[in-house]
Amino acid sequence: MEAKTPLHRPALDPATVTARTGTGYPTDEMRKAVAGRAKRALDDALGLTTFGVNLTRLEPGTASALRHWHLRQDEFVYVLAGELTLVTDEGEQVLGPGTCAGFPGGVPNGHHLVNRTSTFALYLEVGDRLPGDGAEYPDHDLRVRPTSAGWRYTRRDGRPYG
Amino acid sequence: MEAKTPLHRPALDPATVTARTGTGYPTDEMRKAVAGRAKRALDDALGLTTFGVNLTRLEPGTASALRHWHLRQDEFVYVLAGELTLVTDEGEQVLGPGTCAGFPGGVPNGHHLVNRTSTFALYLEVGDRLPGDGAEYPDHDLRVRPTSAGWRYTRRDGRPYG
Repeated sequence: MEAKTPLHRPALDPATVTARTGTGYPTDEMRKAVAGRAKRALDDALGLTTFGVNLTRLEPGTASALRHWHLRQDEFVYVLAGELTLVTDEGEQVLGPGTCAGFPGGVPNGHHLVNRTSTFALYLEVGDRLPGDGAEYPDHDLRVRPTSAGWRYTRRDGRPYG
Repeated sequence: MEAKTPLHRPALDPATVTARTGTGYPTDEMRKAVAGRAKRALDDALGLTTFGVNLTRLEPGTASALRHWHLRQDEFVYVLAGELTLVTDEGEQVLGPGTCAGFPGGVPNGHHLVNRTSTFALYLEVGDRLPGDGAEYPDHDLRVRPTSAGWRYTRRDGRPYG
């Protein structure tokens, strides 16, 4: 439903937020996995700083991320539209609208959402912004760590890509 | 849509989480304002600890809370169903499904959501769990502060109720 009159802060119509595509992943194969992902950063648009909130749309054949787990950050996702396959170490579950998932930080169980349907899917994702985070990618020779210049992706042994 | 097979952690069907009603507000008038509120704590059900997530249902005539602002906690709400009136110092805005609002901690602009329609409304609410929080209630002689025994509601000058 569209707002009857334009909303203004502290309210927000997410349609007014520019969607971000792209990723810092270091190889074409990795980038291709998330090529149909578009995130709207609701947190920044609302002035929120202590946790992150994205409204994310996944086109068919696209994943939310490479399968990963966070060293510290708790993550939450809530499916709004479409159908997403959640892949973890234990296998797969199909999540429809109104279902959710949560990933406590530090639990070494790689996860991601994949859109295996023929239409788009939409979900909210929330994560804390505590310091000391990073992520491991069990299906790839990849990890990410924070640096003073931002997130840095390397091979598991720390060697850089490219 | 219902899940085709029962979901298990890290996934969750919110319908399987028991809804909480009730409030710590100290007077009947205050409690009555939120009597038709039911919260499902998705955070606890998913093992998340660094931020809170509730799926909250408001019956007609019910408010999300007394109008308040947090000393420190950032808050986010996303409307899933129905229509909610957001009340702040600047007046009112009507939020429908797919719209959201955010309240940075420490901004002294009291807010709440009121269901003025004839059907229920449903929304997600997210808040951080940083220490040192508390809330002020500009429309009531009320404030709340954390204590070792939990949240304590008092009059603005600190005197207890009843």
